[in-house]
Amino acid sequence: MVRKGEATRQAVLDQAVELASRVGLDGVTIGALAQRAELSKSGLFAHFRSKEALQLATLAQARERFNDAVVRPALRRPRGEPRLRELFERWVVTGREGMPGSCLFVAASHEFADRPGLVRDEVVAGHRDLADVVAQVYRSGVTDGHFRADLDPDQVAHDVYGVMLAFYHGHRLLADPAAESRTRASFDRLLDHVRT
Amino acid sequence: MVRKGEATRQAVLDQAVELASRVGLDGVTIGALAQRAELSKSGLFAHFRSKEALQLATLAQARERFNDAVVRPALRRPRGEPRLRELFERWVVTGREGMPGSCLFVAASHEFADRPGLVRDEVVAGHRDLADVVAQVYRSGVTDGHFRADLDPDQVAHDVYGVMLAFYHGHRLLADPAAESRTRASFDRLLDHVRT
Repeated sequence: MVRKGEATRQAVLDQAVELASRVGLDGVTIGALAQRAELSKSGLFAHFRSKEALQLATLAQARERFNDAVVRPALRRPRGEPRLRELFERWVVTGREGMPGSCLFVAASHEFADRPGLVRDEVVAGHRDLADVVAQVYRSGVTDGHFRADLDPDQVAHDVYGVMLAFYHGHRLLADPAAESRTRASFDRLLDHVRT
Repeated sequence: MVRKGEATRQAVLDQAVELASRVGLDGVTIGALAQRAELSKSGLFAHFRSKEALQLATLAQARERFNDAVVRPALRRPRGEPRLRELFERWVVTGREGMPGSCLFVAASHEFADRPGLVRDEVVAGHRDLADVVAQVYRSGVTDGHFRADLDPDQVAHDVYGVMLAFYHGHRLLADPAAESRTRASFDRLLDHVRT
């Protein structure tokens, strides 16, 4: 029974992530999700208790899905350039395919930029943690002698973020067919800069 | 009378831009703006006719303000690096100071990414035109021998966009005190790459 409850919870939260990526995180209410998932409002309320708790669980689910698709497989690759490139390639794929959890964090940044609170804190934490992963991947490449030791890993992470934000911008909003090739060129220029 | 009408229209649209930057472009309705500007709904309706027309006028106003603050002064600087740097510096200032028209276009990208229509077209046009300005500034620097002729100006514009999007992300959302210095480091690395 516990296992079944957990599976149901995951399925409901996946629907919440998908809903958020279409209408914005603020559109993820217990009522809207109940309608979408064809569950009773009272059942969902018993689970999540508040709109804010539901939004936090939705963000946590989006992070898990992104980590499953991008971060964990990258960390299984050899340190240095193979690992950083795997992270980049998988990140590009989530953007190209419009993976809901990936878009969600970028969109929620704007939605909650001026709204202090637990939801905004969680959005910020998600971005910070991902930037920290990039910096850590860079650091392990420095240790192994692949990457320059005289660069600030947080600066490299900042630059990788810039490359990815420009990709989302060009691909998702402008629907620019050149967005992906330009993004690869930007990433290659960054790699040229950081290689020993 | 015409002049007075035009001044009033500008003042109302500035309030619309400011409202949009706080609540999103979708929150800019004739009713919300009437309340904010202390004007009659019927008067505003006589002017703008529809929510969509009001949103389009709001975007046009934001573009004008951004061009006044960033693009036009930059184009008065000498071609090549001084002009590109002036564009960058002024763009950073609009982001640092939260200039409403500047934030608005970035936020509206996410708000309208999945909503085809005239408003989305205008958001896309605004971004494309600004990227074209950057590419053109680059080209004039190539002509004068400051910048490398073997690089694609649209790629450089794409990279400048990435630098600026990472700045908005770090400064506006994460409230990261290092965002501006990292952004300068990214821009300097880009300049090192493009200089002849």
